[in-house]
Amino acid sequence: MIVEHRTIECSTRGHDHIVDLTGQVGTAVTESGVTRGQAALLVEGSTAALTTLEFEPGLVNHDISVALEGIAPKDARYEHEETWHDDNGHSHVRASLVGPSLALPIVDGRVPLGTWQQIVLIDSDTRSRRRIVHMSIVGVEV
Amino acid sequence: MIVEHRTIECSTRGHDHIVDLTGQVGTAVTESGVTRGQAALLVEGSTAALTTLEFEPGLVNHDISVALEGIAPKDARYEHEETWHDDNGHSHVRASLVGPSLALPIVDGRVPLGTWQQIVLIDSDTRSRRRIVHMSIVGVEV
Amino acid sequence: MIVEHRTIECSTRGHDHIVDLTGQVGTAVTESGVTRGQAALLVEGSTAALTTLEFEPGLVNHDISVALEGIAPKDARYEHEETWHDDNGHSHVRASLVGPSLALPIVDGRVPLGTWQQIVLIDSDTRSRRRIVHMSIVGVEV
Repeated sequence: MIVEHRTIECSTRGHDHIVDLTGQVGTAVTESGVTRGQAALLVEGSTAALTTLEFEPGLVNHDISVALEGIAPKDARYEHEETWHDDNGHSHVRASLVGPSLALPIVDGRVPLGTWQQIVLIDSDTRSRRRIVHMSIVGVEV
Repeated sequence: MIVEHRTIECSTRGHDHIVDLTGQVGTAVTESGVTRGQAALLVEGSTAALTTLEFEPGLVNHDISVALEGIAPKDARYEHEETWHDDNGHSHVRASLVGPSLALPIVDGRVPLGTWQQIVLIDSDTRSRRRIVHMSIVGVEV
Repeated sequence: MIVEHRTIECSTRGHDHIVDLTGQVGTAVTESGVTRGQAALLVEGSTAALTTLEFEPGLVNHDISVALEGIAPKDARYEHEETWHDDNGHSHVRASLVGPSLALPIVDGRVPLGTWQQIVLIDSDTRSRRRIVHMSIVGVEV
């Protein structure tokens, strides 16, 4: 039985910047030696989220952000901003509703994604950030 | 320690078709022999999502889809559609925001769902699809 | 290899009441003896959800609920309510779209959350409830 912890890091520009983590997740799985098992991914922080999507410019640079703006508009009133005198109330709401974690099966040494499906981080904060994604890999080498 | 990989398949009609996977997930858990542990579920593809809900006609055939239409309307403008000359920009957005995976505990050989809580796939694509859900089961027989 | 099942319980007032579970999750991890591994969390029931957020009054008592009201308004028409003659159609939709589960890495005996990131339950039902969150912990003591 193999139980590994890995961290993935990336730089983001905020404002719903979407970063493709598929390659880094795949490398971590390969390096762990696990060919059958599962991975738990969690992004540190409360203004970024994890999901999967087709990583193509239309969705990544426009369509997802438009939907998030509908869910939590930048210019709405947030008590979070009134309390803390900042500007990222919408960032917190967007990240919480998309969600911070993924549970990923590992099969034959890889995550069985669709051809047009990538693992991504969405950073909804209002400034550049260095992001850390924690990855726990549990399984066996068969 | 048992580490198993299973796939669950189902046919969908798209357009937020919701399929109850609870029985198939339960069968997979039983067949794995794991009575205590956890399962990671991931749907292949970027236009379907996994969650739980009360599988009753009102929610399944109407209410969930109405909310998804509010989040990502079919008739809005999607750069995804302009780039790829297709019609499923809203499908991608809906699936990404609901999310592709579930992390499920296994207790006494079953997933401890509520009485009115079922594991479902929501297919938001615009056509019929054959869907594959990957399931990694890790745990012990006690 | 350690494989543990734990339950976390809390009382809620409904109406998007948000409860901080971070302390209870941390205690369960500590008591399990797992220092490296992962936890799968699932809330029982179809009108509550799990996510992470900064647990501060603005977000917890106002901002998240405002966004959920936008996604599934209390006063919209729900076929769920017409079928079952109840009033919580919006509760079901909100909980399903936020999601019932979290996949959490365990590192050095703790969940590696950000400083302003807490594990929370959002209860969107229309009445007080006693909630059960199931937690499967898998890993090793290193």
